[in-house]
Amino acid sequence: MNYDDEKIVSNIKALALDMIDNAKSGHPGIVLSAAKILYTLFSKHIIINPCDSNWIGRDRFVLSAGHASALLYSTLFMAGYNISLDDLKNFRKINSITPGHPELGITPGVDISTGPLGEGVANAVGMAIASKYLNTIYDGLLNNTIYCLVGDGDLMEGVSLEALSIAGNYSLDNLIILYDSNNMSLDSDTSNTLCEDTLLKFKAMNFDVIKVCDGNNLKDIDKAIRKAKNNKKPTLIEFKTILGKDSFLENTNKVHGGVLSNDDLINIKHKLNICTDSFYISNNNINNFRNMIKNRCTKIYNNWINKYNKLAIEDKNNINILQSLNKINYKFNFSDVDINIPFRDINNKVLNSINSKFIMNSSADLFSACKTKIDKFSDFDKNNYNGQNIYMGVREHGMSAIMNGISSYGLMSICSTFLSFSDYLKAGIRMSALMNLNVLYIFTHDSILVGEDGPTHQPVEQLTMLRAIPNLYVYRPSSTEELYSCYEMIFDKQSPSALIITKNKINIQINGDKNKAKYGAYIIKDEEYEHNLTIMSSGEELQSIILVAKNIEEELKIGIRVVSVPCLEIFEEQNYIYKEKILGNKKIITFEYSNDYKLARYATDDNHILNINEFGISANKNDILLNFGYDNNNLKSLITNIISNY
Amino acid sequence: MNYDDEKIVSNIKALALDMIDNAKSGHPGIVLSAAKILYTLFSKHIIINPCDSNWIGRDRFVLSAGHASALLYSTLFMAGYNISLDDLKNFRKINSITPGHPELGITPGVDISTGPLGEGVANAVGMAIASKYLNTIYDGLLNNTIYCLVGDGDLMEGVSLEALSIAGNYSLDNLIILYDSNNMSLDSDTSNTLCEDTLLKFKAMNFDVIKVCDGNNLKDIDKAIRKAKNNKKPTLIEFKTILGKDSFLENTNKVHGGVLSNDDLINIKHKLNICTDSFYISNNNINNFRNMIKNRCTKIYNNWINKYNKLAIEDKNNINILQSLNKINYKFNFSDVDINIPFRDINNKVLNSINSKFIMNSSADLFSACKTKIDKFSDFDKNNYNGQNIYMGVREHGMSAIMNGISSYGLMSICSTFLSFSDYLKAGIRMSALMNLNVLYIFTHDSILVGEDGPTHQPVEQLTMLRAIPNLYVYRPSSTEELYSCYEMIFDKQSPSALIITKNKINIQINGDKNKAKYGAYIIKDEEYEHNLTIMSSGEELQSIILVAKNIEEELKIGIRVVSVPCLEIFEEQNYIYKEKILGNKKIITFEYSNDYKLARYATDDNHILNINEFGISANKNDILLNFGYDNNNLKSLITNIISNY
Repeated sequence: MNYDDEKIVSNIKALALDMIDNAKSGHPGIVLSAAKILYTLFSKHIIINPCDSNWIGRDRFVLSAGHASALLYSTLFMAGYNISLDDLKNFRKINSITPGHPELGITPGVDISTGPLGEGVANAVGMAIASKYLNTIYDGLLNNTIYCLVGDGDLMEGVSLEALSIAGNYSLDNLIILYDSNNMSLDSDTSNTLCEDTLLKFKAMNFDVIKVCDGNNLKDIDKAIRKAKNNKKPTLIEFKTILGKDSFLENTNKVHGGVLSNDDLINIKHKLNICTDSFYISNNNINNFRNMIKNRCTKIYNNWINKYNKLAIEDKNNINILQSLNKINYKFNFSDVDINIPFRDINNKVLNSINSKFIMNSSADLFSACKTKIDKFSDFDKNNYNGQNIYMGVREHGMSAIMNGISSYGLMSICSTFLSFSDYLKAGIRMSALMNLNVLYIFTHDSILVGEDGPTHQPVEQLTMLRAIPNLYVYRPSSTEELYSCYEMIFDKQSPSALIITKNKINIQINGDKNKAKYGAYIIKDEEYEHNLTIMSSGEELQSIILVAKNIEEELKIGIRVVSVPCLEIFEEQNYIYKEKILGNKKIITFEYSNDYKLARYATDDNHILNINEFGISANKNDILLNFGYDNNNLKSLITNIISNY
Repeated sequence: MNYDDEKIVSNIKALALDMIDNAKSGHPGIVLSAAKILYTLFSKHIIINPCDSNWIGRDRFVLSAGHASALLYSTLFMAGYNISLDDLKNFRKINSITPGHPELGITPGVDISTGPLGEGVANAVGMAIASKYLNTIYDGLLNNTIYCLVGDGDLMEGVSLEALSIAGNYSLDNLIILYDSNNMSLDSDTSNTLCEDTLLKFKAMNFDVIKVCDGNNLKDIDKAIRKAKNNKKPTLIEFKTILGKDSFLENTNKVHGGVLSNDDLINIKHKLNICTDSFYISNNNINNFRNMIKNRCTKIYNNWINKYNKLAIEDKNNINILQSLNKINYKFNFSDVDINIPFRDINNKVLNSINSKFIMNSSADLFSACKTKIDKFSDFDKNNYNGQNIYMGVREHGMSAIMNGISSYGLMSICSTFLSFSDYLKAGIRMSALMNLNVLYIFTHDSILVGEDGPTHQPVEQLTMLRAIPNLYVYRPSSTEELYSCYEMIFDKQSPSALIITKNKINIQINGDKNKAKYGAYIIKDEEYEHNLTIMSSGEELQSIILVAKNIEEELKIGIRVVSVPCLEIFEEQNYIYKEKILGNKKIITFEYSNDYKLARYATDDNHILNINEFGISANKNDILLNFGYDNNNLKSLITNIISNY
């Protein structure tokens, strides 16, 4: 460490503050508390190539405290990533590559989108798992260290506590948590809200812990990270820092967010001993910083490329997949499945036709109830990082965010729990969708027909919620054939998806059509007489409605068409002609054991919506249907009434 | 402890197993591991009166491991609550008082609904807070101990880890966590998923910890609970137990859920030395159990009633409220609010007109950003349990479940965070709604107009999600007058509610109508010419649409009506005549910065839905509106186009 280090840090800080000042919004406090940690990491430790920012062999950096975006961007700029001074000037402006919080795919050097606290920690755990796993396939090529910068807030969030417990459990020694510990959160001094022994808590979670009493001392920071890299467990380094250091507001919650006064900005720059010009940069500082990275990483990078090329010749197929990890070529080989078993068991059989090295599969303690374990995969374990089934324990939100981290490595992630517990991981699904990650959520135990477990376990509003998330495809197949189709679509699109599966046996009236299902919705039962009514439905209840429709059709001699909707989002992508062809121009009834408003919009009248707008009840399936008036007899009268009121 | 204790426990276990056998579903494993803990608690420690199960002076018991419902019901039956043997036989059957998981308000002796793991732990923390707070008002009357039975799964969930951290933080010595530690979860031996030092982790969280190595030893169980009651911190007691003890399947995950074989049932009853008849009960056992409770609690109960009556004379008003805590009589005294300030500041002023002893108010580290601190309240703190503002730290889900626990005491709960982070606490809101608790969620930072913080902080689908939750009223006022009205409705209904508030200043075109807003939706701007079009909107964007509508109206000389929808749920409760009067019979456009499908259903055509179906973008407000095509100019052309395509 020398005088140059301090100068470069000052330049990083000043730039970041100028960015916030220029944008008239941002978070100056953490710029001033954590800059030295970030600088030390980038200059002395993290293995990267700023000129090849997507190099898959790189270490990863997760800014879980996403509000420190200005600090990250100024550091990345100084480090030589493809970010210009103008980009920094456009911080938080429309269509810039420097948005308010880090976004994956927008800024070179940003490895994951962060902002909602805690998520980043879990993403980092997922990356550590992905690296451990992939490294078993490509020895030495994916042996990455995952660094994650967190603030006090991150460590209060349940999602991070879940994920950290997983990290300790699986002894992920490639995970280093850099804790910017300044005893200050947005609202107050954290003595009010975090009176615990953090280091002891991490020890209890099977972490190694290091405390750096002066987080402003570059030497101490460097030493701690150096030590952490050699630990045999995941490591937490607690850096005691001062929020908003050198500001008039230092060490108060007022400096967390907002814009500093001009006076304060000048004051800080004086203390930093740096030119007060806005967006000042010293070429010396830039060159010194970039050279440090080059001197440390270039050889490693070149060796990696050589090793990679060598491996590519030996093992062409797999290395090609590694090269473009995000494109998993997968062809299903469906074997005939006995349809006389519960649908979750059918799903188990179809799921078990999957055999790819580029998938990881997990469940929040419900492999056995969701029936989602893939038997061809071994269990991921601290003694077997080659495993692809990950036992997450009862940690739904952590699971979701961990799978996001895994998918950010290019792997496909599958994870499962009950549909009603999808509420626990909404924030994680949102991030999957926002980042367009290849994550498949399998939610079993669909609808009120979960039965005896009662309203806490019976989803009602969850289908609506999932369908509301932008960029999430929600699949709700009603038969084995449709299930096949859904898997093909999921593997084809490689987009964030949710697959909803009943735990019950479906009594098949009419089997679905694997090919037609690919349009999202299709006519599963044609009208036998002149078209009078269309009924749209999905999932388990589709088969009841087919039975009832056929029954009424025979009795009244009027044509009832039934449309199956295995994926509403895909149907809505079809052209107008197709939609009209499928739906016809007669009255439309929608029928789902859910309060879904998105499908209900197709109903021609409020009275034509058959759904459920209240919580469920603990009882057996038949009693539940009677209770909600959706037993076949009542369903028949409901529909007959609608027809007669035509 | 004597031979009778063992006999009563055997009877409790046998009954619970018979219930599961009879229902053909349930969870036998925990019946056999935890029965002795529950029995010891009820017979020797918890202060209750089974004949007055709603007695507010009672200790509380939370079965966080809600799948142990059969065990709880059989214990409550034996303890003398108003539950019959027939009720036990109706376990998990429709309309029984013994549903699949415990439900508040259905079964005497059930203090809270549980099932989704982790939630119960946080509820218990909330109850401990409520008791601490209320006891400062009614010294000695509300000095309750909160017992919470948890399994391994509960302690893996983030929501419980958040809440436990709060409990340690506030030194809630009236909280005792009874940990049925059997190293087995649904999927597997927990060595696979929970390799941490639980006692050390709790110590780090400022808990006292006790380990009972033989959780099958009644004397040791009793001693541990006795010690815990005298601790000066919250206590975790870890009871090492054996899942499914005495079953052929003991100590395997197979005994967690499902029905035991007949052979096994007989085998267990033999080992328990109890008559093998189904639903056998011994009057001796019942009488012994009930007498133990009576001998211990009757005097305490009578003294409490005397003290209560004495206090009632001294302090008639407050004690009446205490008597019927669930009915908070509150009249607002609105002072005039300057409307020239951001809406969250207006909300702050209105919120600050509240001054009631029967409200607790919290925020997940966002009091300062949501502007939701109530200045008349002091801060809840380990040194001031009389405080009504609770700093929750960055723990959204924990906050929500804690507030549920507080409301279960009859207090009104208010809690706040950003709308986009409502995703973190969906599972908690669902429980508020399911239990019909008086919890108000204030979600500020509404819509894409959050601005620079970008898509992670800009809610899009959250309004849809909230409106989808059964029994939740979602308020989205567009002016100060409507805000007044919303608060009056919230206090009037005392139902679970969400109040959505923009952080921005609203440029008032037309002020709302406080009285008309009570119908959920009303005409805020009448048409100036013959009625041609109705536009429905809410929140911040309503004022833009009024401006644009007036503009078009003047230009084209056609009548445009604007309907404000501060609460869609209340509007939908109105009669048909009112609805028709408000909406008219012309084309309807819906306009919200959200993808809400519930309001969109009112649009007369897909093209008449003006909403947002994608994630936001980091930029300033104006650029965001331009980006989505909802700047006033474009809004005008969109609507003009709809009109001309009439």
